[in-house]
Amino acid sequence: MTTGTNIVIRIARQPPPGPLAADTFDYVEEPLAPLADGEIRVESIYAAIDAGSRAALDDQSAYVIKTRPGGRASTSAMVGRVVDSRHPEWRPGEYARVLMTTRQQYVTLTPAQGQVFKADPAAGPLAMHAGLLGLTGFTAWVGIFEIGRPKAGETVLVSAAAGAVGSVAGQYARIAGARVIGIAGGPDKCRFVREQFGFDDCIDYKHEDVGAAIERTCPEGVDVYFENVGGEIQKAAFARLNDFGRVAMCGQIAQYSGAGEPPGPNLMQVVLRRLRVHGFLASDHMELLPRFTEETSRWYREGRIRQRTSIVEGMRNLHEAINALVEGRNLGQQLHQMAADPTAA
Amino acid sequence: MTTGTNIVIRIARQPPPGPLAADTFDYVEEPLAPLADGEIRVESIYAAIDAGSRAALDDQSAYVIKTRPGGRASTSAMVGRVVDSRHPEWRPGEYARVLMTTRQQYVTLTPAQGQVFKADPAAGPLAMHAGLLGLTGFTAWVGIFEIGRPKAGETVLVSAAAGAVGSVAGQYARIAGARVIGIAGGPDKCRFVREQFGFDDCIDYKHEDVGAAIERTCPEGVDVYFENVGGEIQKAAFARLNDFGRVAMCGQIAQYSGAGEPPGPNLMQVVLRRLRVHGFLASDHMELLPRFTEETSRWYREGRIRQRTSIVEGMRNLHEAINALVEGRNLGQQLHQMAADPTAA
Repeated sequence: MTTGTNIVIRIARQPPPGPLAADTFDYVEEPLAPLADGEIRVESIYAAIDAGSRAALDDQSAYVIKTRPGGRASTSAMVGRVVDSRHPEWRPGEYARVLMTTRQQYVTLTPAQGQVFKADPAAGPLAMHAGLLGLTGFTAWVGIFEIGRPKAGETVLVSAAAGAVGSVAGQYARIAGARVIGIAGGPDKCRFVREQFGFDDCIDYKHEDVGAAIERTCPEGVDVYFENVGGEIQKAAFARLNDFGRVAMCGQIAQYSGAGEPPGPNLMQVVLRRLRVHGFLASDHMELLPRFTEETSRWYREGRIRQRTSIVEGMRNLHEAINALVEGRNLGQQLHQMAADPTAA
Repeated sequence: MTTGTNIVIRIARQPPPGPLAADTFDYVEEPLAPLADGEIRVESIYAAIDAGSRAALDDQSAYVIKTRPGGRASTSAMVGRVVDSRHPEWRPGEYARVLMTTRQQYVTLTPAQGQVFKADPAAGPLAMHAGLLGLTGFTAWVGIFEIGRPKAGETVLVSAAAGAVGSVAGQYARIAGARVIGIAGGPDKCRFVREQFGFDDCIDYKHEDVGAAIERTCPEGVDVYFENVGGEIQKAAFARLNDFGRVAMCGQIAQYSGAGEPPGPNLMQVVLRRLRVHGFLASDHMELLPRFTEETSRWYREGRIRQRTSIVEGMRNLHEAINALVEGRNLGQQLHQMAADPTAA
């Protein structure tokens, strides 16, 4: 039975725009209460960092979940080891995947609430359970299979294609039989998108005119645009959508820096091309989580879908893990490692 | 049997931005061919004018159907009298409602092509068949019942609410049980929208801050925004949509003047509020025309839906009829009257 103290990560101060300083977060020692009947306690190992992690701190942006100084930092997904259990189906030493929880050394949970799942280390690296099988993978899955719904032979364009969501979205679109073009920043990321994630091509927005590059790589136009960047890339993509094109929008990274909200693309195209532009949050579709988990685990086993993770280690390095994502230093899913991974070689 | 000549309206020249001059169109006399088996000939009485009528002439805008100098002018709906028939189900003297046809004195048609319907003068004024039962009414019906789908008790905001499409869209939304707020230009139009079309309230965009007025009239936010204006009104409405709000977009009148394409609203809201923004053209939904016709005719008979028409008379006054719409002089459906209406009192 766990006793002693927990480390809870709380917001210390509203950060100014730009990279986060070490004093953005407080790592507060708090006593651990004994488990109640039906509860389990999980030691956090890997926690996901995603675009919302920075935006949630930022008073000037308008992201969904706002955290205030003194409040707990949250994460979309975490994988950890069960250290204590008063639940009949859970045993210490097992691994747990937890969706939408708070960032702390030990998370106390009631599995009946439906956001805790067994994580089988034999199914893939532990980190995968917080990324590909976390809310980022689920976001990609919802965006492709529920929102964009590409048909075989259609062209799917994916922005932020080297990121956790985009890299997986493109692979799902390939599984759906579509031709998939990514957009990423720099030749290294673009090579990764093509070679590791199997996209048909990838546009380097740092060195190419994105509009011209979309026309070159998508000669038949774009049927589904998986959008999570906003800004100029969004405008270039909107202008090249086919009739009845679909836009699945799950985030606009270019706007997360707190610099106000620039205008968007002219929406005349939406009428002329009869577009369907859908904003979505995977967390509105939790009833689909079992199907997502089954399909994604299977495709992973079959080698049809891959994930890459970038890890910043150290309980007290959350600010660095978020900075790595915001500055684009990550490839694939950015994770914050809060404890040693016993399954790592 | 009709013999002799027809008057066909052709585009004389690409007009500069602004009001159309009389020489925009040529009224060309052309010989009438004898009817082939299965054809009917209809003398045009009322033809619809809609936002596309101006935009189609304008090389700088991007509207769907482009007409070039020498080409025939087209209309989304016309109602006229059958003057000749070689079709067993049609007799001279009957009235016909014709969708998506060309502007000419006599239209020769094959009823089997599915865009010609009997127009019963006892069902309502002949002009109604080119407006409420034409493509404008159908656009309103598709936008409300197929795209926006308001539920009882939800709030629906309708731009261009005094226009042919908006005035009808609001009435459909009321039939669906929604609370309906219009946006129109000037106190006279706003009074009409409230008193004639039964909207719960109407915002005068010429004399009110639209954003503040939306907040005042829609205290629970906007669930469905029926959008056909673009510009600043669009931005104000987008910013006040509720979670899971729907935007039915069928035109952007503010952009039809050929002055280029200004930026649109920032789409961050689409993600944050999980909006569904759908551009649509009623002509993509022609399979629903029978249901639309049945429902709308019934609601009209029951007094649950009304239409107002504004008429510019005179075969050679097409430019004036279009100017009346573009300049906002119309209330409800703008029509061009090409021949005397034998049913008028």
